[in-house]
Amino acid sequence: MNKIEHIGIAVKDIKKSNDLFSKLFGKAHYKIEEVTSEGVNTSFFQVGENKIELLEATNPDSPIAKFIEKRGEGIHHIAFDVDDIEAEILRLQGEGFTVLNKTPKKGADNKLVAFLHPKSTNGVLVELCQDIKD
Amino acid sequence: MNKIEHIGIAVKDIKKSNDLFSKLFGKAHYKIEEVTSEGVNTSFFQVGENKIELLEATNPDSPIAKFIEKRGEGIHHIAFDVDDIEAEILRLQGEGFTVLNKTPKKGADNKLVAFLHPKSTNGVLVELCQDIKD
Repeated sequence: MNKIEHIGIAVKDIKKSNDLFSKLFGKAHYKIEEVTSEGVNTSFFQVGENKIELLEATNPDSPIAKFIEKRGEGIHHIAFDVDDIEAEILRLQGEGFTVLNKTPKKGADNKLVAFLHPKSTNGVLVELCQDIKD
Repeated sequence: MNKIEHIGIAVKDIKKSNDLFSKLFGKAHYKIEEVTSEGVNTSFFQVGENKIELLEATNPDSPIAKFIEKRGEGIHHIAFDVDDIEAEILRLQGEGFTVLNKTPKKGADNKLVAFLHPKSTNGVLVELCQDIKD
């Protein structure tokens, strides 16, 4: 794992939260993106070498809607940048982690992504992500 | 805010979790430190420019013990590096955030720290931290 790529934060209202986090960081988000397959609107802030990704559900079946219903708004996941996501999935399975996506899927921000089950990672939802090279 | 300084993760058993996160990151923690005033044992992993801080309660009144009792193990806070914590506290109060420590206190890893109430930050416990210069 090279670095923390981003931290995902579940929010109810992405417009209000964009304002809030703009005040917190002293600068605006640089991108918004809808990820239809995940049922989310996202926005991104750059902080040092990391990104903060706000996630708003676009439908009641979205994982973000369910997360907020259960736990309220807050930190949803940590994503780590990897060079070779398929090799990393195999390595982590070998170490006993539960990988939820044996085959990486397309995520926001032009990435291939896979998640580890929080039960195998001390309650932390961990995302692996690899840049998709054109 | 310059960058994410660290992400704090609440764990029940820091020895077990050191093993777990060593497997996740492919490298060991580089430091352990007890912060008596907060009732925690901490350990630190370096990932890119950020640190991951594991937090284990050392007594039942520790904020970490209460967090785990209520929410289970998982991500506890995000800490941001700032140059001038007192100026940043004033700026954030002016923006409407609730600062829990108007006067910064001594935290782990030779830092002055102050927390923002998660009710004012979308459910995210935000820590500000500034290096203590010798």
